[in-house]
Amino acid sequence: MLTESADLRFYLTGFRSSFGIVYTDAQESVFFTDPRYAEGAKAALKNTFIAVEIAKDLSTVLDYVKSKKVRRLAVPFERVTLPQAEEFKARRFKLTDSMPVFTQAMAVKSDDELALIRKACGIAEKALDEVVSELKEGITENDAAAMLEYYMRRHGAEDRSFETIAAFGKNSSVPHHASGATKLVKGMPVLFDFGCKCSGYCSDITRTFLFGKGEDQAEFIKMYGHVYDAHMRAAENIVSGMTGREADALARDHLKEEGIDKFFTHSLGHGIGINIHEYPTLSPNGTAILRDGMVFSIEPGVYFEGKFGIRVEDSVMLRGGKVESFMKSDKKLTVL
Amino acid sequence: MLTESADLRFYLTGFRSSFGIVYTDAQESVFFTDPRYAEGAKAALKNTFIAVEIAKDLSTVLDYVKSKKVRRLAVPFERVTLPQAEEFKARRFKLTDSMPVFTQAMAVKSDDELALIRKACGIAEKALDEVVSELKEGITENDAAAMLEYYMRRHGAEDRSFETIAAFGKNSSVPHHASGATKLVKGMPVLFDFGCKCSGYCSDITRTFLFGKGEDQAEFIKMYGHVYDAHMRAAENIVSGMTGREADALARDHLKEEGIDKFFTHSLGHGIGINIHEYPTLSPNGTAILRDGMVFSIEPGVYFEGKFGIRVEDSVMLRGGKVESFMKSDKKLTVL
Repeated sequence: MLTESADLRFYLTGFRSSFGIVYTDAQESVFFTDPRYAEGAKAALKNTFIAVEIAKDLSTVLDYVKSKKVRRLAVPFERVTLPQAEEFKARRFKLTDSMPVFTQAMAVKSDDELALIRKACGIAEKALDEVVSELKEGITENDAAAMLEYYMRRHGAEDRSFETIAAFGKNSSVPHHASGATKLVKGMPVLFDFGCKCSGYCSDITRTFLFGKGEDQAEFIKMYGHVYDAHMRAAENIVSGMTGREADALARDHLKEEGIDKFFTHSLGHGIGINIHEYPTLSPNGTAILRDGMVFSIEPGVYFEGKFGIRVEDSVMLRGGKVESFMKSDKKLTVL
Repeated sequence: MLTESADLRFYLTGFRSSFGIVYTDAQESVFFTDPRYAEGAKAALKNTFIAVEIAKDLSTVLDYVKSKKVRRLAVPFERVTLPQAEEFKARRFKLTDSMPVFTQAMAVKSDDELALIRKACGIAEKALDEVVSELKEGITENDAAAMLEYYMRRHGAEDRSFETIAAFGKNSSVPHHASGATKLVKGMPVLFDFGCKCSGYCSDITRTFLFGKGEDQAEFIKMYGHVYDAHMRAAENIVSGMTGREADALARDHLKEEGIDKFFTHSLGHGIGINIHEYPTLSPNGTAILRDGMVFSIEPGVYFEGKFGIRVEDSVMLRGGKVESFMKSDKKLTVL
């Protein structure tokens, strides 16, 4: 088994570097990296069964593997590029795809991984509390996004887990809105979708608020109730053993009963871990079977173009067959 | 010509999305994307020759291309994965590698691109000024890194361009130090290596300071002078037409004259653009010929393990055959 892919390497070693290759066979596990990272890797891996060796590139490692008379090599096909494939071919390795094994293994989290995701979720919520308490008229989406990221960094996150979405007013109706110069005005909906990375693991949360009372909020409040109920129906009824499609249907069917399922234009959720989007997918096409130890988002949303959008999202895990949320903040409508 | 790679797509269209494929032949240029981005892409590309079409995946696009009786297809080999290669193979496309063309074309920046890089550099320096003015004893590396990122965001950056390095004291001797809980103490060296992204384009800067006067700084001050001189020798003598190796040698030879070239453990510089590391490379193996319009870093550094490290870096461009720095902040040793 051999991989150069950054996320898979980190999964196997817990060590981060801009270059490295992990090779494992029945006799040995070796992390090859360049001299810049050698000392750090040795210190990090000294209590594991993974040895550290110096190598400057894939060729060097493949020559070593070839010298061991290895002929079959498992590599993650979707991470192997054409020039890399040529390197394998030149040495006549017979390749098998390791990606399905990684996907399945990485989907079920260990206790250590769950603790890091829990920490990343806690940091995101702490930052949310702080930013919400500082929101005032005239602040821009960019300001709010920058503040969310800053507070997460100050509380120990090493990075945001994806581009922070701060959407005010009708911008909330664009699911992937790019935070901009729009200013906050009393009565507007406020949607924050964001998260951070903590020791390599991601969090993901969305909250939608009303920034003070305003006119014409009745429709928003009604729709919020439907999205909240859809979220809760999914959270309370998703059980281990269900497929991603069945989980998605719990929320989608509720919105259908309210006649607004066509405004729910994305999936219910996605796996979360080292990557912000990973296995399993909770969607109408989701064939994955949900299992204890999996971590994913529950994020129903409805989007009314030019008016407003609402999304209520938690990062959750499955434990003892049931959903357990990492989030503690209120999901009921808050008027700020 | 066809590519799905995010940076290459952005280079061709100026439009950012999590999914998209650009296809170009003698008759047409089409940006295929999914419904989430269709409206945004149409608006962004309406004054260009690039049409926008909906497609959900690579297969759909390849079926379209196949239906045009196209047989030869240029794709960027180092961005094509094994499963994608299978898709091409299944349709009997004859592939040629477009990556060298992208690499060369992207290395020479247009005026619009230079303006964005200049802006990203200006934002980084503004943030640096602010953080430097707020540095005080007891602040951690993490705090300083978070502040740099926050100020860059507030001044209009959409993201950092790479993991911000804030290194205090002997941590400065680790070129890729991960900012941590080390606290600032009077007399310490302070090294900041960071940058931001502005409308998709990167900046990169390193400054090393002394945080107030302290004992045993004579050696640091002497070494700083050597690194500064190495930087200036490169900046003043790099000319268009030179190779990356010749450029690197300007700084390296100066450090050799001072007997400290063995502490200069990395390359002199790297191309900067949509990606933080791109063509050309200024290193002892650098065969690239430097040309007007190229943007790269000049970053000599020396690292004395367990003692201190010094790096002085500007993002620069070549214009009229000479180096022109994007940076305005002083590179001479500043005692804060």
